[in-house]
Amino acid sequence: MARSPKNSNNNNDKRRATSYDVARIAGVSQSAVSRVFKPGASASAEMRKRVLDAAEEVGYRPNAIARGLITQRSNMVGVILSKLTNLYYPEVLVELTRRFSQRGVRVLLFALETEGDTDEILEQVLQYQVDGVVTAAMLTHKQLALFEKAGIPVIFYNRTLGELPVNSVRCDQEEGERWLVSELAASGHRRFSIISGPEDSPVSKERTTGAIEKLHELGINDVTVVVGDYGYESGRRGFREIVTQLGSPPNAVIAANDVMAIGCIDEARQGFGLQVPGDLSVVGFDGVGPASYAAYDLTTVRQPVRRMTEAAVSMLLERIEDHHLSPEKRVFSGVRVPGSSAQVSHGD
Amino acid sequence: MARSPKNSNNNNDKRRATSYDVARIAGVSQSAVSRVFKPGASASAEMRKRVLDAAEEVGYRPNAIARGLITQRSNMVGVILSKLTNLYYPEVLVELTRRFSQRGVRVLLFALETEGDTDEILEQVLQYQVDGVVTAAMLTHKQLALFEKAGIPVIFYNRTLGELPVNSVRCDQEEGERWLVSELAASGHRRFSIISGPEDSPVSKERTTGAIEKLHELGINDVTVVVGDYGYESGRRGFREIVTQLGSPPNAVIAANDVMAIGCIDEARQGFGLQVPGDLSVVGFDGVGPASYAAYDLTTVRQPVRRMTEAAVSMLLERIEDHHLSPEKRVFSGVRVPGSSAQVSHGD
Repeated sequence: MARSPKNSNNNNDKRRATSYDVARIAGVSQSAVSRVFKPGASASAEMRKRVLDAAEEVGYRPNAIARGLITQRSNMVGVILSKLTNLYYPEVLVELTRRFSQRGVRVLLFALETEGDTDEILEQVLQYQVDGVVTAAMLTHKQLALFEKAGIPVIFYNRTLGELPVNSVRCDQEEGERWLVSELAASGHRRFSIISGPEDSPVSKERTTGAIEKLHELGINDVTVVVGDYGYESGRRGFREIVTQLGSPPNAVIAANDVMAIGCIDEARQGFGLQVPGDLSVVGFDGVGPASYAAYDLTTVRQPVRRMTEAAVSMLLERIEDHHLSPEKRVFSGVRVPGSSAQVSHGD
Repeated sequence: MARSPKNSNNNNDKRRATSYDVARIAGVSQSAVSRVFKPGASASAEMRKRVLDAAEEVGYRPNAIARGLITQRSNMVGVILSKLTNLYYPEVLVELTRRFSQRGVRVLLFALETEGDTDEILEQVLQYQVDGVVTAAMLTHKQLALFEKAGIPVIFYNRTLGELPVNSVRCDQEEGERWLVSELAASGHRRFSIISGPEDSPVSKERTTGAIEKLHELGINDVTVVVGDYGYESGRRGFREIVTQLGSPPNAVIAANDVMAIGCIDEARQGFGLQVPGDLSVVGFDGVGPASYAAYDLTTVRQPVRRMTEAAVSMLLERIEDHHLSPEKRVFSGVRVPGSSAQVSHGD
């Protein structure tokens, strides 16, 4: 149960070294030890050296967590992610972790298998007394209320919660899709199909709805929609389903993310002998690494991950400092990336 | 500084609710509150209801971290990663997080910008009093000694530390490269080039050394080596450098990871009009998602991520339970993936 350092000549007992052990070995008071380890507190150079040498000897570390119990800060934030296997989200996690680290805040990670798992881990997030939460998974009103009651600010990442005044950072999925549809329609495409993401994905819903509404505005009402799971194989399968439903290939496929767009292109080329973009235009969304590989060179909308994660981090830290800040929604336009996967008439 | 729940009608003061608040509202003793929240401790059904209702009212959560101070367990493990932007490592992180979560253990994430950053964050890992560490970043002997002194078991992931008896889980990089070289040589390739990873990457060093040694054994001593950074663009640049150095394209390129192999293929096709595998064979390592995209269909060696992460998790948890377990090294063979990016004569 208790800890037992191995290969340590100086510390043969089985418990963690405490400030008391350090004080005893250094021959100073416990409060002197505290002063040495407390940021900003004063201690003479000699005292500092004696204490640090003793701490080194017994393997003592000032306990950041115990300190958190006193300051009521754990200096940890929870990051709740789902569908991490989507190629896109790892980038978000890396950027969030970097930015929190730069500010001395640690990331405690909660990865959901699906968006529905939230209840199961929510209790744990609360128990770890994180200072705040960034969630890229959906929360219910009731779940959000639990965080509010516990005094833990929450930032929704690419999620919102109906009409509630929550804090959120997101990419304008709808605007991006409307641009993609406009470009394709302007260059003469008329037979459109859509490969959506999973039905429980709010991001996919926003993207798919954005595309369909713009198509309707342009008088294009007959749109085939098939459902994918954001993965490569589902892009390939989605294209086969579209061709089966239509009886022949469409002019343009709008995939709800880049990875499915890539699968769709491979299936069109390999399974149907089609030229992309000669016979078929395919567009994605996200701007993941593989989107720019020469074999695909996707026309897509890139989420400005750096700016979005920076916004999420600074919004959360502000709210940890001051719980009374009013909620804020920040919506970032995606970066338009015209590639060669779609035939579009630029500059018209 | 202190917490202030918003939208809470029941709790208008600014600090976190404590067990004292719950006891006051429930009209019971503080130790009764503790018993209700302590796993395994006894409390009557009526007591439980009174306490839980009061806890709900004031937004009290039993503090997992405070409990950790008593049990000397934080139920958190540190995961140290570097070069996260390599497409490969996010998969490792997802798998590690899932497996620890399934066992009720939380992951505190430390992401290094480079392998050299370790010192800077090591102190923080120690201060958070994690129960153990999985590191996919290099540690020095001195750094490892600090963990040992603090009684924190460490599992090296795809890393070792010289001759020291440390715990490690890794993929047999050398074996994988020797297989790739054998396959290529058996089908007549003679002009080999290598695109290595960053010079400070131990994994790249093992892979590159493994390939070169096998080539030497086969009497192939004239091998051009250029240095990449594991990224797509460095694969493209690497191929251009190879052609410049050789004066003409090689027969075969061994890239130290899949992403650079993909870059190399795109550059060979787009920049030099070469057929892959007709004119040039390219092999990678890792088995990342894009390796199996139809445009590349890489011949590669897939790291068995699920088995490796499962091994790392179970080894670490065993050592948290019992610090006296002797060190263990587990080496997993990679999965051989024959693709169409290399001309090899199967079944000879």
